Amino acid sequence: MFSRSELTAMVNKALVNIPYNRESERLIEPVRYVLSIGGKRLRPVLALMACNLFTDKIDDALVPVTGLEIFHNFTLVHDDIMDNASLRRGQAAVHSKWDVNQAILSGDVMAFIANECFLQSPPESLQKVFRIFNKAAVEVCVGQQLDMNYEKVGIIHQDEYLRMIELKTASLIAASVRIGALLGGAGDRDSDLVFEFGRNLGLAFQVQDDLLDAYGDVKIFGKTSGGDIVTGKKTYLYVRAMELAGPELKKKLQEVYGIPGGDPETTIKVVTGIYDTLNIKKLTENLAKEYYDAALGYLEKVSVPADRKKGIIRLTDSLNSREQ
Amino acid sequence: MFSRSELTAMVNKALVNIPYNRESERLIEPVRYVLSIGGKRLRPVLALMACNLFTDKIDDALVPVTGLEIFHNFTLVHDDIMDNASLRRGQAAVHSKWDVNQAILSGDVMAFIANECFLQSPPESLQKVFRIFNKAAVEVCVGQQLDMNYEKVGIIHQDEYLRMIELKTASLIAASVRIGALLGGAGDRDSDLVFEFGRNLGLAFQVQDDLLDAYGDVKIFGKTSGGDIVTGKKTYLYVRAMELAGPELKKKLQEVYGIPGGDPETTIKVVTGIYDTLNIKKLTENLAKEYYDAALGYLEKVSVPADRKKGIIRLTDSLNSREQ
Repeated sequence: MFSRSELTAMVNKALVNIPYNRESERLIEPVRYVLSIGGKRLRPVLALMACNLFTDKIDDALVPVTGLEIFHNFTLVHDDIMDNASLRRGQAAVHSKWDVNQAILSGDVMAFIANECFLQSPPESLQKVFRIFNKAAVEVCVGQQLDMNYEKVGIIHQDEYLRMIELKTASLIAASVRIGALLGGAGDRDSDLVFEFGRNLGLAFQVQDDLLDAYGDVKIFGKTSGGDIVTGKKTYLYVRAMELAGPELKKKLQEVYGIPGGDPETTIKVVTGIYDTLNIKKLTENLAKEYYDAALGYLEKVSVPADRKKGIIRLTDSLNSREQ
Repeated sequence: MFSRSELTAMVNKALVNIPYNRESERLIEPVRYVLSIGGKRLRPVLALMACNLFTDKIDDALVPVTGLEIFHNFTLVHDDIMDNASLRRGQAAVHSKWDVNQAILSGDVMAFIANECFLQSPPESLQKVFRIFNKAAVEVCVGQQLDMNYEKVGIIHQDEYLRMIELKTASLIAASVRIGALLGGAGDRDSDLVFEFGRNLGLAFQVQDDLLDAYGDVKIFGKTSGGDIVTGKKTYLYVRAMELAGPELKKKLQEVYGIPGGDPETTIKVVTGIYDTLNIKKLTENLAKEYYDAALGYLEKVSVPADRKKGIIRLTDSLNSREQ
């Protein structure tokens, strides 16, 4: 079995070794940049771990799953433009370091570099692997669209929010582990279980991300704590708070959440104060835990010896308790 | 054999029948829009004609080649943002009708809808078809990058310009006909010949596009005649003029070409006046004709009866003599 750090190193090496079209450095420089400023490589590492559940021979999966990381970073480059986010992982976003046009185009080419990776799947798995990926890719776009739509409406329901993050975040993580399992030779039932593991893990991950934005620390989290509050981004915390607040608190929350011109620190203090009154932090932690538990439940049912699951369980646990 | 209008109708029908993810109308509305405002469907029609050279059974090729049109329109949606072009085919560009963020995201999803089409290639051809497409997709991005780079430098050489349009325009047309030929069962030699046909046709097409922008008519061409001159877009005509002009004319050309604030009509008049002095129109027509002739030369060598080539030759001729 491979450890998380071994797999991360393999993915990082594969990312560095991608044979880029060299005819324009300018096009590729932002690609290299965004792939070099960190990131957990969660999707390819999870995919390799899912593959490693079923086989020790994971070499053939490496390049295809690297495509998942490149696709993910493509979405980050474009999302940062759309969300007007100037920082990514504590560094300048591509559209800040270069410009919007460069971020559009270098983002675009990443989508095709990702394709190139999937095209290196073993021929007998190619169509399946690519279809799993591509379905998720469309869903990620739909999720981003819903996210943008929801920014413009007053109140959204918990269910709508959770469906949005399922599309935007969980579907790619679920696709990642399904692709890994498939490349590892898993049968249909195990593939479905692994997919459900990934879907729940993805939901847990995003809910916790929302939590960390409001309660995390900028030094370890790499972006402004409370950034979602200041920019008015709908998060699970906000959506829940709006559901639970009485008329007065609801009014107060709407008056400050994401309202331009206010002092950011005051805004964050007022909003987290309201969250605290409504016990939102605890509720959010509980939901994340429910999803983590569900994920582990699906994993338990996968028909490989418990020994083989240790690595992926350890990664799941560490995500569950992460503070960044 | 199928006629151009039959093939165009088939492609248009396939485009309408794409099963979109329906969870966000907002995401898909711009996709439908850009696919509905016209366009010659040149790439899929050429691909089907290339397929039809080798077989009468072109049904299996229809969905995959429709991906070429969707990809092409994806590039138009994003290019129009980057080029700050508010019109496309005489209608509002997506980023004008909606906004830049919507154009980025609806463009993105088109790349994956195109993938979905290629994924419906017959399994035995899938990897080859997708690799041919994907190589071209990367090249189109590189071409767009070079195009943007060249906007910022004073003088570029004819060779650089022609390589840029080869990447940005010709490589997708070449890939289209190669994919069609492959799906039609062509052997390697014929595939290569068809590819060279497409590459030369693509070059001819773009050179003529440059010509039509300077000398075409807005009513039939659907965009501002002289738009490239006013916005300062490097075209074959400009590049050639800068190569051929003496110091005085060169200075005059640089003083007006794409300089903001000037009266558009005056600018166009001055620039086309310089072009006329240097015989640029004729030179450009000659180059386009050279490429068309080369394209037809490659087509002639393809090892199918002359009868089967009539349709694709007729299309090539009509592109050669087009005025829009």
